[in-house]
Amino acid sequence: MTDAERERAQRVDAVLPTLRAAAEEADRLAAFPTTHVGLLRDAGLLGLVVPEKFGGLGGTLRDLAAATYAMGTACPSTALAFFFHNTSASRGLLPLEAIEAGLFADDEIPIVQSFAEKVLTRMADGVWLANFASESVKTAAANITIATTARKADGGWILQGEKSFGCATGVADYYLTSAKLAGYETAAGLATFFVPRDAPGVSVRAPWDGLGMRATANNGIRLDQVFIPDDEAMAVPGAFTKMLTMSRGSFVGNQLAIAAAYTGCAQHVYDETIAVTTAKTFADTGEPISSSPVHQVLIGEMTRHLQTAYLWLRYQLTIETAEPPFKPKQDVFTQWRLGKGAVTEACFQVALGAFKAGGTSAAAMSGVAGRALRDLAMGLVMTFPAERGMLEVARIVTEAKANELFTTAPTEAAR
Amino acid sequence: MTDAERERAQRVDAVLPTLRAAAEEADRLAAFPTTHVGLLRDAGLLGLVVPEKFGGLGGTLRDLAAATYAMGTACPSTALAFFFHNTSASRGLLPLEAIEAGLFADDEIPIVQSFAEKVLTRMADGVWLANFASESVKTAAANITIATTARKADGGWILQGEKSFGCATGVADYYLTSAKLAGYETAAGLATFFVPRDAPGVSVRAPWDGLGMRATANNGIRLDQVFIPDDEAMAVPGAFTKMLTMSRGSFVGNQLAIAAAYTGCAQHVYDETIAVTTAKTFADTGEPISSSPVHQVLIGEMTRHLQTAYLWLRYQLTIETAEPPFKPKQDVFTQWRLGKGAVTEACFQVALGAFKAGGTSAAAMSGVAGRALRDLAMGLVMTFPAERGMLEVARIVTEAKANELFTTAPTEAAR
Amino acid sequence: MTDAERERAQRVDAVLPTLRAAAEEADRLAAFPTTHVGLLRDAGLLGLVVPEKFGGLGGTLRDLAAATYAMGTACPSTALAFFFHNTSASRGLLPLEAIEAGLFADDEIPIVQSFAEKVLTRMADGVWLANFASESVKTAAANITIATTARKADGGWILQGEKSFGCATGVADYYLTSAKLAGYETAAGLATFFVPRDAPGVSVRAPWDGLGMRATANNGIRLDQVFIPDDEAMAVPGAFTKMLTMSRGSFVGNQLAIAAAYTGCAQHVYDETIAVTTAKTFADTGEPISSSPVHQVLIGEMTRHLQTAYLWLRYQLTIETAEPPFKPKQDVFTQWRLGKGAVTEACFQVALGAFKAGGTSAAAMSGVAGRALRDLAMGLVMTFPAERGMLEVARIVTEAKANELFTTAPTEAAR
Amino acid sequence: MTDAERERAQRVDAVLPTLRAAAEEADRLAAFPTTHVGLLRDAGLLGLVVPEKFGGLGGTLRDLAAATYAMGTACPSTALAFFFHNTSASRGLLPLEAIEAGLFADDEIPIVQSFAEKVLTRMADGVWLANFASESVKTAAANITIATTARKADGGWILQGEKSFGCATGVADYYLTSAKLAGYETAAGLATFFVPRDAPGVSVRAPWDGLGMRATANNGIRLDQVFIPDDEAMAVPGAFTKMLTMSRGSFVGNQLAIAAAYTGCAQHVYDETIAVTTAKTFADTGEPISSSPVHQVLIGEMTRHLQTAYLWLRYQLTIETAEPPFKPKQDVFTQWRLGKGAVTEACFQVALGAFKAGGTSAAAMSGVAGRALRDLAMGLVMTFPAERGMLEVARIVTEAKANELFTTAPTEAAR
Repeated sequence: MTDAERERAQRVDAVLPTLRAAAEEADRLAAFPTTHVGLLRDAGLLGLVVPEKFGGLGGTLRDLAAATYAMGTACPSTALAFFFHNTSASRGLLPLEAIEAGLFADDEIPIVQSFAEKVLTRMADGVWLANFASESVKTAAANITIATTARKADGGWILQGEKSFGCATGVADYYLTSAKLAGYETAAGLATFFVPRDAPGVSVRAPWDGLGMRATANNGIRLDQVFIPDDEAMAVPGAFTKMLTMSRGSFVGNQLAIAAAYTGCAQHVYDETIAVTTAKTFADTGEPISSSPVHQVLIGEMTRHLQTAYLWLRYQLTIETAEPPFKPKQDVFTQWRLGKGAVTEACFQVALGAFKAGGTSAAAMSGVAGRALRDLAMGLVMTFPAERGMLEVARIVTEAKANELFTTAPTEAAR
Repeated sequence: MTDAERERAQRVDAVLPTLRAAAEEADRLAAFPTTHVGLLRDAGLLGLVVPEKFGGLGGTLRDLAAATYAMGTACPSTALAFFFHNTSASRGLLPLEAIEAGLFADDEIPIVQSFAEKVLTRMADGVWLANFASESVKTAAANITIATTARKADGGWILQGEKSFGCATGVADYYLTSAKLAGYETAAGLATFFVPRDAPGVSVRAPWDGLGMRATANNGIRLDQVFIPDDEAMAVPGAFTKMLTMSRGSFVGNQLAIAAAYTGCAQHVYDETIAVTTAKTFADTGEPISSSPVHQVLIGEMTRHLQTAYLWLRYQLTIETAEPPFKPKQDVFTQWRLGKGAVTEACFQVALGAFKAGGTSAAAMSGVAGRALRDLAMGLVMTFPAERGMLEVARIVTEAKANELFTTAPTEAAR
Repeated sequence: MTDAERERAQRVDAVLPTLRAAAEEADRLAAFPTTHVGLLRDAGLLGLVVPEKFGGLGGTLRDLAAATYAMGTACPSTALAFFFHNTSASRGLLPLEAIEAGLFADDEIPIVQSFAEKVLTRMADGVWLANFASESVKTAAANITIATTARKADGGWILQGEKSFGCATGVADYYLTSAKLAGYETAAGLATFFVPRDAPGVSVRAPWDGLGMRATANNGIRLDQVFIPDDEAMAVPGAFTKMLTMSRGSFVGNQLAIAAAYTGCAQHVYDETIAVTTAKTFADTGEPISSSPVHQVLIGEMTRHLQTAYLWLRYQLTIETAEPPFKPKQDVFTQWRLGKGAVTEACFQVALGAFKAGGTSAAAMSGVAGRALRDLAMGLVMTFPAERGMLEVARIVTEAKANELFTTAPTEAAR
Repeated sequence: MTDAERERAQRVDAVLPTLRAAAEEADRLAAFPTTHVGLLRDAGLLGLVVPEKFGGLGGTLRDLAAATYAMGTACPSTALAFFFHNTSASRGLLPLEAIEAGLFADDEIPIVQSFAEKVLTRMADGVWLANFASESVKTAAANITIATTARKADGGWILQGEKSFGCATGVADYYLTSAKLAGYETAAGLATFFVPRDAPGVSVRAPWDGLGMRATANNGIRLDQVFIPDDEAMAVPGAFTKMLTMSRGSFVGNQLAIAAAYTGCAQHVYDETIAVTTAKTFADTGEPISSSPVHQVLIGEMTRHLQTAYLWLRYQLTIETAEPPFKPKQDVFTQWRLGKGAVTEACFQVALGAFKAGGTSAAAMSGVAGRALRDLAMGLVMTFPAERGMLEVARIVTEAKANELFTTAPTEAAR
């Protein structure tokens, strides 16, 4: 950890007690504590990963993962909502990198740059930006399918659609929203818009009653003929895909910081289990509960799972942040296809072990074990389940090989 | 199925729509729907396993398991509460068997017989009897430790203690309560009492906010100097242990009917998953969601787990009900040590598969998948976790062998 | 067990000591002990499942499974070879059933009947019939692909092809061989031939150096222009598929008796592990090795796996032999798709546990644990791996549902 | 990799073709190819981890792990034997570190130093040193129990005992042998001796017929009144335990290089599986075998397991070699308790996947898949099984916590 990282970590540490104190009720009410917005803003954390020249704290993915991990030990819901806000930074950083890499035409640059800088400066200024992971339409071909549309109007764009699974619904200042430009059928037609929380036509969907991660305000929104002015849009065709080529891992990067939030939660329920089972004793022998053979098996397995989560997470962080990079983007991507599932499955197993170790008396809705079980179950389905990642990797591995064999053939023939 | 079994099964089927309709709200409110008492009483089901000569329906463990299974598909909480009521029948049936087996002295017989018949006739008359699975004191030596005490008073007994994890708290007409007679330190000193729900000194503990099986009124009770008259007690020393020797499996038998309730729940969430994923299609290919490689893997695994649950359950039912018995009690007991864990783990895996198959949109607190995940998680900890059963069996297997080797020695020496 | 079953079981028991004594060397040499042919013939066991009216012992699938299980405890290789011989009986029994069911035209009946009875009477007379499970060509569409061809010649047929994985190569009196009639592209064109071991053109492939099940003479054969006279052939088009419709489970039935052989092997290595670890003691404490925490975990898991194997096997036997049948053929088939994998995976886990329980000193090529590990590994790949069965079941379950949904549509339209 | 590391790696690479070419026959014959001694000696590799000032190549644990990994892809047996030779270096390096750390008295230093340097210079000079992992006596208290004794004689020591599981029996120039000095009952009495291969009284035990890692000459030796002169012994009481305190991880360190050998083997069978299943096609569709759903599942799982092995291995290497160390010895030790099992189980799963992917035709004794299955099975039992490591860690974690709680108490009392 560098000194700067340590300073940023202290800002995170300072908010943890408040997050921890509010966590149980927030979970019960399925409500994101709105005072957390001010708390995190005042701590400067809304600009955690925004470069200093745009007014942010200058943190990297290492800082973000450390922050979501730490918050995960206190209130996983807040960690997740905070993650989603921060991932918006990529919508600023990656386009700027793409400009530098010469991917944009001269006339596109001012539009892209202006929008990108707006994302970053707003975040640094303490504006909370929401972000959406999915829509309700599913396709066999892609993880995420965008059906929301944007059509040109005078001086701006008209958005129509519905977004699901986006943290901070009704809480964020803006919803950073992807939509498909009329006339495009591929990702090249994806554009991004700042949709103000209270813009006409924007409505919040029914309360989200999630199994876990309940205090994330994950309702999603409806956009009914919402007008967004031109200067609040980045509607340059191809900008979205150009931006994605700049991320080191998958999509806009950062994904591992979600896994860090889950790992924080797993560490917390692990610590709690060790603390409780070593403190409580059997009435007859006076030995700690933890010493029973079944608890030894459960704790041994929990330890192994927890370490497994750290190993995948730590390595992913290394390959996504090492300078200079030592893995090609495709490998970073592939590793994460396995890593995402590996971390979340391992974390869930930790919660399951804690749940068993606690017995019926701890099998409550609101206790540490019950809460962790619910929160960590969400990790199993968010983005994609482990089984999907595993199958994708199999395809990558075998098709790459098929291609490889094929490309060799002409070489041999050329001899 | 015999005709009589079919008739009893129809009584169960008739109540299912009501149970199913009430299930979601009951879960949300964590409240046992009190109208279910009348529903089940009117259907004659409170006497399901009471012999006809005591006014019951004459069902056996087969009927009970079929009933809790069927109820498990509609409302697992009701299935569980209903199970606990029915298990009380053993407190009537086993003592009567023990009398027949000549285990009681002549002067004990009238007391034991009177109490036993009272249990059975009350059940047949539509009285709901609660039952408790545990207390808060844990010992290394036993699964269940009774700390509640009974001391003699004029014309009756004074009970003092606290009981946890008992269904139908505040709902049942009587709490069938075990307590330790003053002066005894072993199970020989365990006595059983009818504690009226509203007897002076009886209080309900704080609301039970379980992770799952929430509508079971599982609060538990406190007994503060509760007076129970002599004729509402079976306080014959040794009666408890004599009774236990008559059960075919472990403890008072019947335990597999809990596992049947969980299996019903698993079958329901399985059916729902198949129905939803085969009906919903991908927007691009028009193929059902279920046809995706990841869904095929998930559904294949779910099917395997569900079948596994049935196999363990079905076999346990066979060895606990076959006439004549073809397995010694010790083997029936051992099989259940593995079977309980095997069924509940398999059922939980079905729920987990359903949860993954549904993705984030189905990862709700109250949906079928979320509810099943929570209900079935309770199966992992109730009575004992799979890991404990597995370790107990290892000890039985290896110590029996050690003993066996030892007992052979003198035989050889005697030649 | 009926008396007749007991009598047949005694014939099996009588040969076990000889099989057991020869097992280790047979494994080492990868050679089927040719004297076993006479041993089993003299015991009448080559006609174990041939009806009494054809001179056999009249056993059913229950006898066959019991026999392969028992032999599996002594010499798994012999159990497997014996299984393959017995499965030939289906080539006699199923066609006779198909005749009775009216599936054959009048002019076909004499040919089919004569061949079928020849299969059965030869077996009853002590003739060993080999059988082949596969060929080297693989297709995506089917488990088994037949590339061997039969073309008509004067007075008979000319066979050309290669067969792999068939027990008793060079040992059996005849190879019961499937081949594709010229001009047919589907299973309707499959015909069956008695190929004498020493017929001109028949050669044994290179020695088979299997990982396990080594003493099965599994080399396979080559058929180079082998002439088979008409009366040694059943070349009625469609006979093969008609025969298959008569089996209760998959293919020609009987498959579970292979799984029984593996289960016998698993029981043996389990017993041996318990015996050794309870007899051997720690030098410092004098306690048996089996009492160590790690051995308790291993033995607990082994017990669970072994019981799992029995459950799947026992249930499959029930649904394949119950009279009257209580499951449709499709369900029996589906159950086996899961059951085959479940039994063999569980058995392999028993061997793996035994291997770990024995430590480096027992990790030998020829010891009980090492041998069982190798023999039981073969169960994982024979016929199909568990993963394949699981995926097939997923497809059956989801496509049945899709079909079901589809068939409803016209009904609705018809209203 | 530094340039020096690269140069050492090239020496390893240069011998791989020879190792690979000899591997299959060496496995079949269960014989360590004696020509490999000269090959490795000539490549300078017997001094791989000996500091340059003693004439070695100056490699570290990183080099050793890289070497055993690379050799593991070619001939796992040679990798294992080579590992055992190299681990002898610790018997030179750790005592020298202990001297530097001031752990020895002035009069002990010359003896210790002389012996330590002799170990190192001999290795650098191309002398092969064998090493033994176990004896046949087992205790509940320790992983390894030394029963071999050394009693003082005129000018030297008389050794008596038996050693098992030591690579290079009959091949190594010297057996570096631990024995218990007469009069000592703890590890403080352990002394180390150079036992020449052909010294009077030294005999090789019966051929070792291991399941895997067969070409390691793992027979073990018998020592019957073997005289070793004083200057070939390090018989300073306490030297053994003092030496152990200097290793960063467990025992004499280096253990992870065994796991690296297994990982090399796993990578090899993985590569082979991908190569074969992507090259071979289905006869009907023309698609590669690898594209079938079951192969996709198998390959996905194999990839995940292989990556898991790398993660544990890589991290262990980091914490054992990082300068300055960032984990206390106890944590390094604990991590390895889990890591050893995690790596070897993952590698075994890779082999199992390969085995299944290959089907019956690849299920041979000598093919790549069968050989890997056998070699990698050895990893499950060498040193300790995963279950043992897991239980040890549970004890460490819970007892540390118990101690921690206890030490807090007096602090509180002092307030």
